[in-house]
Amino acid sequence: MNKEEYFIKQFTSNKIIGDDGAFIDGFVYSMDAFFENVHFKKEWMSLSQIAYKSMIVNISDAIVMNAKPKFALLSVAIPKSYTNQDLKELSKGFKKAAKEFGIKIIGGDTISNAKLDISVTIISTTSNPIYRKGMKKGELLCYTGTLGLCKRDLERLFKNKEISKKSKFIKPILNADFFYEVAPFITTSMDISDGLFFELERLSKANKLGFEFFHDIDEEIGTSGEEYEILFSFDEKNLDKIKKIALKHKVKLNIFAKAVKGKYKTDCKNHHF
Amino acid sequence: MNKEEYFIKQFTSNKIIGDDGAFIDGFVYSMDAFFENVHFKKEWMSLSQIAYKSMIVNISDAIVMNAKPKFALLSVAIPKSYTNQDLKELSKGFKKAAKEFGIKIIGGDTISNAKLDISVTIISTTSNPIYRKGMKKGELLCYTGTLGLCKRDLERLFKNKEISKKSKFIKPILNADFFYEVAPFITTSMDISDGLFFELERLSKANKLGFEFFHDIDEEIGTSGEEYEILFSFDEKNLDKIKKIALKHKVKLNIFAKAVKGKYKTDCKNHHF
Repeated sequence: MNKEEYFIKQFTSNKIIGDDGAFIDGFVYSMDAFFENVHFKKEWMSLSQIAYKSMIVNISDAIVMNAKPKFALLSVAIPKSYTNQDLKELSKGFKKAAKEFGIKIIGGDTISNAKLDISVTIISTTSNPIYRKGMKKGELLCYTGTLGLCKRDLERLFKNKEISKKSKFIKPILNADFFYEVAPFITTSMDISDGLFFELERLSKANKLGFEFFHDIDEEIGTSGEEYEILFSFDEKNLDKIKKIALKHKVKLNIFAKAVKGKYKTDCKNHHF
Repeated sequence: MNKEEYFIKQFTSNKIIGDDGAFIDGFVYSMDAFFENVHFKKEWMSLSQIAYKSMIVNISDAIVMNAKPKFALLSVAIPKSYTNQDLKELSKGFKKAAKEFGIKIIGGDTISNAKLDISVTIISTTSNPIYRKGMKKGELLCYTGTLGLCKRDLERLFKNKEISKKSKFIKPILNADFFYEVAPFITTSMDISDGLFFELERLSKANKLGFEFFHDIDEEIGTSGEEYEILFSFDEKNLDKIKKIALKHKVKLNIFAKAVKGKYKTDCKNHHF
């Protein structure tokens, strides 16, 4: 068990913990940290891009629970050296993401710190939350889009190489409209933030089921984190409906496994400390 | 204008920002950071005390808006060096505060970081929020308890001197029951986190009023931060009711000024960056 898991375990008398967000009475509450030298290096992105991504990774949690983000709170720790122009850039990124998803920034906290450390809380609403738990034997497993590029781009950044301005690592793409439409036809879902293999481990644990893979998945694909693509499961009878909705929204589907009796564990190393 | 104010100003097309928490449809949402080497040094307090105080300073925001805290989200950045015993200690402090105020910890994020940096979001409910704005000319200004000890204790800590185990700097005392009972009889309120003089400046700005002081207030008292006593204003006609409630809850009242036409500004230096 890694330290994150150990710490979270101290609170798990509480059944609400375990999904991308906590669903209570029609609301979903989610909170994610986005820290300098943990999630990004400042050389990699502009301040506006950093603020934007810090919002997007949080909005992603709401979307994969089929919730519409409404409000955001920001805790922003800012280096003393930042100029007013820097602060303006930073706020631009927050406001851009907020505008894109119809979110109101309602408060938070701003402090002085050695580095730029952001935590975002998103308050969302839903009448039909989708959890990680609830998968049945025989269901199909699917992820959206293309995986692997974020790992490759991250490796390039670590080697001080250029990456495409359109890299998903800089600007994740959330398939919100696709997901809201497909939600009634799926059973479980979560976003791919730590890599497909690690998310599958979580899904296996939550549902006490294993997976029968239809083909091998490369480590380059399965361990690529920060993709913010969606991993979900569904009953085969909904396959055609889901395909049709994906086509409409131009979302690529990768149906790669079936839920079976057993347990899934990856041999690949987890990024976590 | 300091940097914190400049950054917040980027978002103030939004009328909700400006109070200890944001009130929306019966809920109050508040979020505060509690960072190592910004709000505390780890030599000063046990991990359990740090976690406890990080919750209390957030719960304080809910109370002074007359809201009952219900749920908490925690963003906790933890040094790699921490042992499982350390993590247990840390979780103990969070759970202690949660239990004391009937709060459920519903989620958040845990990451690895160079130092212990905590952000807490509290979700509260109220049918009668009290804001910073709404003070009328002639109202009386009051703060609870005794101010000055936190500044003194903080100075001792900086000189590596011992402080009392019961210091409010380590364990702030929130007068929740007093405040909920007195709330119907007061007009504006906020907690004293940065020092009385600085809170008065904010109150003056929010209400476009100044203050006529009944007596001089020492700098040692007016600039003592992290007190988490309550600053509030009320119509003189409610004085007896308020005094009676304070007596019942053994809360000391300091009625020190009257709201008048004008503007209040302190000459003292603000702690903020």
